[in-house]
Amino acid sequence: SVQEPTITATLFPGDGIGPEISDAVMQIFEAAKAPIEWDVQIVGKEVDPRTNSFVTRENLDSVLKNRIGLKAPMATPIGKGFRSLNLTLRKELGLYANVRPCLSIPGYKTRYDNIDLVTIRENTEGEYSGLEHEVVPGVVESLKVITRVASTRVAEFAFDYASKHGRRKVTAVHKANIMKLADGLFIKCCREVSERYPDIEYEEMIVDNTCMQLVSKPGQFDVMCMPNLYGDIISDLCAGLIGGLGLTPSGNIGANGLALMEAVHGTAPDIVGQNKANPTALLLSGVMMLRHLTLNKQADMIEKACLSTIAEGKYLTRDLGGKSGTTDFTSAIIGHLQG
Amino acid sequence: SVQEPTITATLFPGDGIGPEISDAVMQIFEAAKAPIEWDVQIVGKEVDPRTNSFVTRENLDSVLKNRIGLKAPMATPIGKGFRSLNLTLRKELGLYANVRPCLSIPGYKTRYDNIDLVTIRENTEGEYSGLEHEVVPGVVESLKVITRVASTRVAEFAFDYASKHGRRKVTAVHKANIMKLADGLFIKCCREVSERYPDIEYEEMIVDNTCMQLVSKPGQFDVMCMPNLYGDIISDLCAGLIGGLGLTPSGNIGANGLALMEAVHGTAPDIVGQNKANPTALLLSGVMMLRHLTLNKQADMIEKACLSTIAEGKYLTRDLGGKSGTTDFTSAIIGHLQG
Ligand SMILES: CC(C)[C@H](C(=O)O)[C@@H](O)C(=O)O
Ligand SMILES: CC(C)[C@H](C(=O)O)[C@@H](O)C(=O)O
Repeated sequence: SVQEPTITATLFPGDGIGPEISDAVMQIFEAAKAPIEWDVQIVGKEVDPRTNSFVTRENLDSVLKNRIGLKAPMATPIGKGFRSLNLTLRKELGLYANVRPCLSIPGYKTRYDNIDLVTIRENTEGEYSGLEHEVVPGVVESLKVITRVASTRVAEFAFDYASKHGRRKVTAVHKANIMKLADGLFIKCCREVSERYPDIEYEEMIVDNTCMQLVSKPGQFDVMCMPNLYGDIISDLCAGLIGGLGLTPSGNIGANGLALMEAVHGTAPDIVGQNKANPTALLLSGVMMLRHLTLNKQADMIEKACLSTIAEGKYLTRDLGGKSGTTDFTSAIIGHLQG
Repeated sequence: SVQEPTITATLFPGDGIGPEISDAVMQIFEAAKAPIEWDVQIVGKEVDPRTNSFVTRENLDSVLKNRIGLKAPMATPIGKGFRSLNLTLRKELGLYANVRPCLSIPGYKTRYDNIDLVTIRENTEGEYSGLEHEVVPGVVESLKVITRVASTRVAEFAFDYASKHGRRKVTAVHKANIMKLADGLFIKCCREVSERYPDIEYEEMIVDNTCMQLVSKPGQFDVMCMPNLYGDIISDLCAGLIGGLGLTPSGNIGANGLALMEAVHGTAPDIVGQNKANPTALLLSGVMMLRHLTLNKQADMIEKACLSTIAEGKYLTRDLGGKSGTTDFTSAIIGHLQG
């Protein structure tokens, strides 16, 4: 077969268990002959004045140049006034949509079967504006900002995603009965965009009801699109339905296909360096990355190998109910790779 | 036995199925010899200029005089600029804490067993401030307001509730990693109050993680205390774990024991007048009301009869998986009452 050109992707190995699971992913990618060369980026130990964050200008430029990246968990730096690493990356790179496919993993038993939904979260504004102040002592205001531009952009992304992935429905989640102007604007934009996609069903659902429906009848959902905080809450809720953040991939998408995929679980300081970490979420985020690059063959191969290893149940890490270490789990996945 | 003095309680029969389920509750209360006289209050058909709402001054005065009430679902009036009935009642009556016990119902099968937790929601401010404006076309700001007074008040309520009900833990739910000032103030107040209750365990949990934990390991929770919108979302999520809003009671509590209990489900316009409505949520809200009045004997009797009828499974309404009407279900509950 023809040799595929190598693509350079930024890799943030992150902190805590980040480097261990990044190693696992790099090994599996290599074994699968995924044509990726990693541009490894370490976040600074001091604040870069150009970004007012531990994320340096070079870190950002790497993603901007490569247009694609994979990120392991990063520890929140201690200290006041600096922005969180995650938020800095999202904001500075204009990663306006967070995508989290949520699919039941055969062999990993939870209370729910056959979950197959995708949350799409507005990733740049809403309750994450950072605009807060103390009006008088004991009285604080926090601003939620909703704009037509960002709402339309994420709605377009959601419908486009649904259409490209053969999905049948988009549900816009809101609380416009209370936040009539803010969430009202959000759903207005979703509604407008929906009119351009007559083949995709469109519905609106209030956020409290959505959460009740998700825990009782999750099968009714397909693609869901929502403002920042509801997305934060609902994507974690959905991860909980299938087994938690250790199993769910995530992607942050910006303009012109700029994409940074990430494992959204924590750095797990308690198990660092003990060969206990589970690389699944980062690996499946890597699979999302490959699909984003239309390297579908390698994506399918790695995904299948990962899911077969879990379904087989012989070499699972402790969080998955097994007794194996990261390295044995990784080797088992490599053993399941089929060309 | 000594005749108990009769207590006058306000009853809002509400709209849709409200009057039918209110009738059922009144019948069951009478059969249980609960010493309650109902002061039935109908919400206005026009806006009362004194309240700028369909809730009239007389409606409010009835609750303020009786200090106790029970409310069936009300239809949201159509028209702009008027406040929702629910919000008017909460705000005008100063009902600052919303309490929702969430207990698995034996015989009603869901994916979860042995759920036993209570959500306590700040009911007056936060994202429900109603303060919103369009800054420029396409840019909307919505204000979340958090105050020391309201946060401390609801935290005190939560710890007091936990202590009176023999509960072991209070979890404060927040997103202070993002809303550092607003949610930061909320948890600061919870933390301060917790120090006065050394026998009750106190923990803090971020709202996204809380929702993930609730769907995967709900047994870890006991009493939960949170700002308005998180309470709105999480109390519905919790209701979903045990079977939905048709089964969960709710209470709104204000200063000096003022209390308005309510069924929080909808008015179900599609089944009005068809003898299909399920009175359980309103009945269990009535049970909360009786306990609030320390009429524990009647509360226990009615609760037991309701739960036995559901566990027996012979006379269930359709939403509970049965084929009976409201009236047969009600008669079955009355048949299970034991003096
Ligand atoms: C770590 C935190 C700032 C972040 C968020 O709230 O967005 C996380 O919960 C996520 O979902 O990626
Ligand atoms: C109807 C609506 C205004 C209300 C709320 O958001 O508080 C409802 O969801 C509730 O929980 O009582």
